Amino acid sequence: MLQFSEVQAAAARLKGVAHRTPVVTSRTLDQLLGLNVFMKAENLQRMGAFKFRGGFNAVSVLSEAERSRGVVAFSSGNHAQAVALAARLHGCAATIVMPHDAPAPKLAATRGYGAEVILYDRYTEDRAAIARRLTEERGASLIPPFDHLPVMAGQGTAALELIEDAGPLDALIVCAGGGGFLSGCTVAAKHLLPAIEVFGAEPERGNDMQLSLQRGEIVTIDVPRTICDGQQTQAVGRHPFEVIKAHVTDVLAVPDPVVVDAMRFAFERMKLVLEPSGACALAALMQHRERFRGQRVGVTLSGGNVGMDRFLALMSGAGVD
Amino acid sequence: MLQFSEVQAAAARLKGVAHRTPVVTSRTLDQLLGLNVFMKAENLQRMGAFKFRGGFNAVSVLSEAERSRGVVAFSSGNHAQAVALAARLHGCAATIVMPHDAPAPKLAATRGYGAEVILYDRYTEDRAAIARRLTEERGASLIPPFDHLPVMAGQGTAALELIEDAGPLDALIVCAGGGGFLSGCTVAAKHLLPAIEVFGAEPERGNDMQLSLQRGEIVTIDVPRTICDGQQTQAVGRHPFEVIKAHVTDVLAVPDPVVVDAMRFAFERMKLVLEPSGACALAALMQHRERFRGQRVGVTLSGGNVGMDRFLALMSGAGVD
Repeated sequence: MLQFSEVQAAAARLKGVAHRTPVVTSRTLDQLLGLNVFMKAENLQRMGAFKFRGGFNAVSVLSEAERSRGVVAFSSGNHAQAVALAARLHGCAATIVMPHDAPAPKLAATRGYGAEVILYDRYTEDRAAIARRLTEERGASLIPPFDHLPVMAGQGTAALELIEDAGPLDALIVCAGGGGFLSGCTVAAKHLLPAIEVFGAEPERGNDMQLSLQRGEIVTIDVPRTICDGQQTQAVGRHPFEVIKAHVTDVLAVPDPVVVDAMRFAFERMKLVLEPSGACALAALMQHRERFRGQRVGVTLSGGNVGMDRFLALMSGAGVD
Repeated sequence: MLQFSEVQAAAARLKGVAHRTPVVTSRTLDQLLGLNVFMKAENLQRMGAFKFRGGFNAVSVLSEAERSRGVVAFSSGNHAQAVALAARLHGCAATIVMPHDAPAPKLAATRGYGAEVILYDRYTEDRAAIARRLTEERGASLIPPFDHLPVMAGQGTAALELIEDAGPLDALIVCAGGGGFLSGCTVAAKHLLPAIEVFGAEPERGNDMQLSLQRGEIVTIDVPRTICDGQQTQAVGRHPFEVIKAHVTDVLAVPDPVVVDAMRFAFERMKLVLEPSGACALAALMQHRERFRGQRVGVTLSGGNVGMDRFLALMSGAGVD
């Protein structure tokens, strides 16, 4: 199982490389919810999301010989940019396998970080097989998006910083897709504050982690239909679930319209841009506020990578039901 | 003339009360502009703008007897909320004179901070006369928005923090309306870094400060038609101009569409919400980048108080020409 010492080691590697993102508070929100909330603004992290932490740590722990043969990732989202940037900072080559219909800004950003992008057809080709072939042909190292201890350790540094800056917390809510962020943060939080209760937050329509925790085993679902594109995973990873099963109190499910409300609140009152998945933990707190009344609650604002057009559409209610 | 010691004293009063806002950097922006930019994110300040600094300091320097008779301000913008919040934190009454057609969210926010709002008709009534009558009737203290040393000293603490956090700078660009923010920041910056060049930034259509600096005397213009609603002042204040005339290198004028570009860049790449005037200094740097090539440049992001509807309209190009 992931150990706290690995999170600490990741924090040392990330020092001076990752931004120490601010912990944001809002008296308006505290009054509205009847509690004290401390938000870790990872939307202000390099490349716009916490994913940089795990990507950088995973490339760091490779040997020089391994790095010289390059790294490979498959992702259509923030993990792609995280690995691309982490590789460039280590002076090694990155190959990112992305669907040919990935949003143009994400393709451009990934290429902008110097990565080679290999496109595949998501309806006819198997991206895992493509990535595997690449790692075999080139001897490159695959950096998985969540089911990988060095990635989990890197993500956990966000909770470490949050608790260092905010002080004691009664609860911590972390948005959850494959569980890399939630498991890393759980290990850090439970070590620093043994009595803290840690919660995952996921879209109501993609509640595989909630089901998995209830049943005590990993449940796989269809690709969820939700605006939270960072959380369209079908199942929690094996390594993350080990931590989550042992230490996470509960997983809070959130309807998409509440995610839009949280994005709007962050925009209007906190002046922060959040992508849907980046607002999921805050939305979970809004939706389940009664459970946290009077507490000091940490919340991750995990990312801000949403294009202007999509943001405007979401704020007009398009695709939200 | 405003002295650095007054800025220092203001910083001591604001410690633990104002947020120490983060200094944000963007490698993408640095590459784009060919320089190094350090942005003071005052949109993340309490009540969403740097104005809190000056408002709080001005209420702080009143005697207890003065505060017991309350404070008065006339403003339709961020100064209203700043004084309202500063008064509440000091446990004193605030009366804010606002036009009856002020935006509903601003009225609500000002009342939300506990202030009494007195509405007037901006076409038939003289707000200064109304405020004067209130101060006479109630013995209350008027807190002017910029032409007031304690307000200027408070605003200057933003530059103090920026330079403490960013280190040496070659230049500093500060958005300018009545000159309270620019003059306070100039005094702080020139004391800490005597060789620094300080620039004001104002909308092209409201370039009264540029004209005033060129002519060496205060020039008054008609109310400017610009999207930068925080900078629709007709003339720089007398106290600020004393500093600006002596120590500011130049005032950079910015067309409104470049302000929209800067707002869009802040949203998409920095995940920050800026109101038009809040993006004016960044827009000035974008517009006049050649002048700063290779330099380390400080820029104020002065506020983020823009409603969602107005933001969406501006991003669609409405009212921008």
